[in-house]
Amino acid sequence: MKFTKGHGTGNDFVILPDPDGALDLTPELVAAICDRRRGLGGDGVLRVVRAAKHPDGAALAGDAEWFMDYWNSDGSFAEMCGNGARVFVRFLLDSGLATPIHGVLPVATRAGLVRARLDGEDIAVEMRRPRLYATSTAALGALTLPGTAVDVGNPHLVCPLPAGLELTGLDLTRAPGFDPTIFPSGVNVEFTADGEPLDGVDGHVLMRVYERGSAETLSCGTGACAVAAVALRDIARETGTIAVDVPGGRLTVTLTDNSCWLSGPALLTATGTLTLPTP
Amino acid sequence: MKFTKGHGTGNDFVILPDPDGALDLTPELVAAICDRRRGLGGDGVLRVVRAAKHPDGAALAGDAEWFMDYWNSDGSFAEMCGNGARVFVRFLLDSGLATPIHGVLPVATRAGLVRARLDGEDIAVEMRRPRLYATSTAALGALTLPGTAVDVGNPHLVCPLPAGLELTGLDLTRAPGFDPTIFPSGVNVEFTADGEPLDGVDGHVLMRVYERGSAETLSCGTGACAVAAVALRDIARETGTIAVDVPGGRLTVTLTDNSCWLSGPALLTATGTLTLPTP
Repeated sequence: MKFTKGHGTGNDFVILPDPDGALDLTPELVAAICDRRRGLGGDGVLRVVRAAKHPDGAALAGDAEWFMDYWNSDGSFAEMCGNGARVFVRFLLDSGLATPIHGVLPVATRAGLVRARLDGEDIAVEMRRPRLYATSTAALGALTLPGTAVDVGNPHLVCPLPAGLELTGLDLTRAPGFDPTIFPSGVNVEFTADGEPLDGVDGHVLMRVYERGSAETLSCGTGACAVAAVALRDIARETGTIAVDVPGGRLTVTLTDNSCWLSGPALLTATGTLTLPTP
Repeated sequence: MKFTKGHGTGNDFVILPDPDGALDLTPELVAAICDRRRGLGGDGVLRVVRAAKHPDGAALAGDAEWFMDYWNSDGSFAEMCGNGARVFVRFLLDSGLATPIHGVLPVATRAGLVRARLDGEDIAVEMRRPRLYATSTAALGALTLPGTAVDVGNPHLVCPLPAGLELTGLDLTRAPGFDPTIFPSGVNVEFTADGEPLDGVDGHVLMRVYERGSAETLSCGTGACAVAAVALRDIARETGTIAVDVPGGRLTVTLTDNSCWLSGPALLTATGTLTLPTP
């Protein structure tokens, strides 16, 4: 089985080129591939299938040639993954499977059509526009931090640190506490601090994230979008561009009246053949 | 850069074939390769160099054609690694680079010449004979567990669980406490329980291990050797064969009067080309 491995700001994926949808991908096989020691390792699998050849992509095949068949590392499905989509597009472009038209490349996903574009060396994908909808608090050890609840398709709680607290000093080895009446399905919690002023953007935020049901991670695309929306709200704006530094690198989020673009590096790190036994 | 990835009972390695020692391997490059998200990921790198072409292997080149240039994932050197040596030998055999003579394949390592042999489907390597030298205790939360200090080139503390405690119930998310007067450079701590009786071996032990300066791991070759030596001592024997089940699979340790063989599965899982940027 041919593979390419890549990552976007430290979210890593195993890409399986399968243009005709011939691969018999199962949850067990995905979990075996994503096993970091007994397999190749990854946060998820991105199968590259022609949209017309995949049941979930066929309806979108008029607009998008390729369907992003995204699987989580545990073998479950996910509708969309911002960093995954950026790595998926890097693979399409580098392998010559697709060319943007007027700068835009449409990709079919389980969440519908997603537009992507080259942004200098980076790759940008269009995400759902974040919606701020409540205030709440996160508990971290003895700390209780107020924050803003944000819906980006999945739930987020964005908590700016008060003066005197350092982002690097937080202990995120344990899950933050949250209010289950506001987040009945759990929540991704972002802790933020102001970054140094940067040219060319309207704001610069440093963030660490504890992902729902997981752990602290190097990056979270929807989390960066939530953080950018809160940062713009805090300077009394609804549109603009915010640089968001996650532990895995720098993402840039641009909100317009009706869209949200997530931009950042997407790199391919290895290519080859999987020889692991079928589970 | 060509690579193969493989693992032995869940200890995983990136193998870099470099017969003529032409590769300019640096600690930074090793760390970048072993980075589990931004690189390929591994517990270490095994560079495959002709012994005559490597300064540390040249003196052994009359006996061994190949030198195992082993690096830890942080870019530091290690003298030897039992599971690494088993994966290294699997690679030599599968790629046709070496053939055992009278069943034995000698490999040059920084710890000197190491003998390997095929053991059915498994691969066995000769390790240093464990030396039991003290009694001590490990502290795990409110528990204080007595154990035996064992020297296998590196220090181990083997602690059998008392009746009523389950191995699966231990919380090994934090490092066990130990006596620094007995282990001034730290210690690997093995917790053990009796396994079901097995045919063909003299004992069967289940083990979990917290590796010095690291975390709980899926396997530890020297730890399995230490555990086997204690299990034999407990049945008043100095030689014999013990099956040691680690979280990553089953290792079998055979002690003779003057040697210790570590045997178990060694699998190659992927092969290809690294495209990650030079750090």
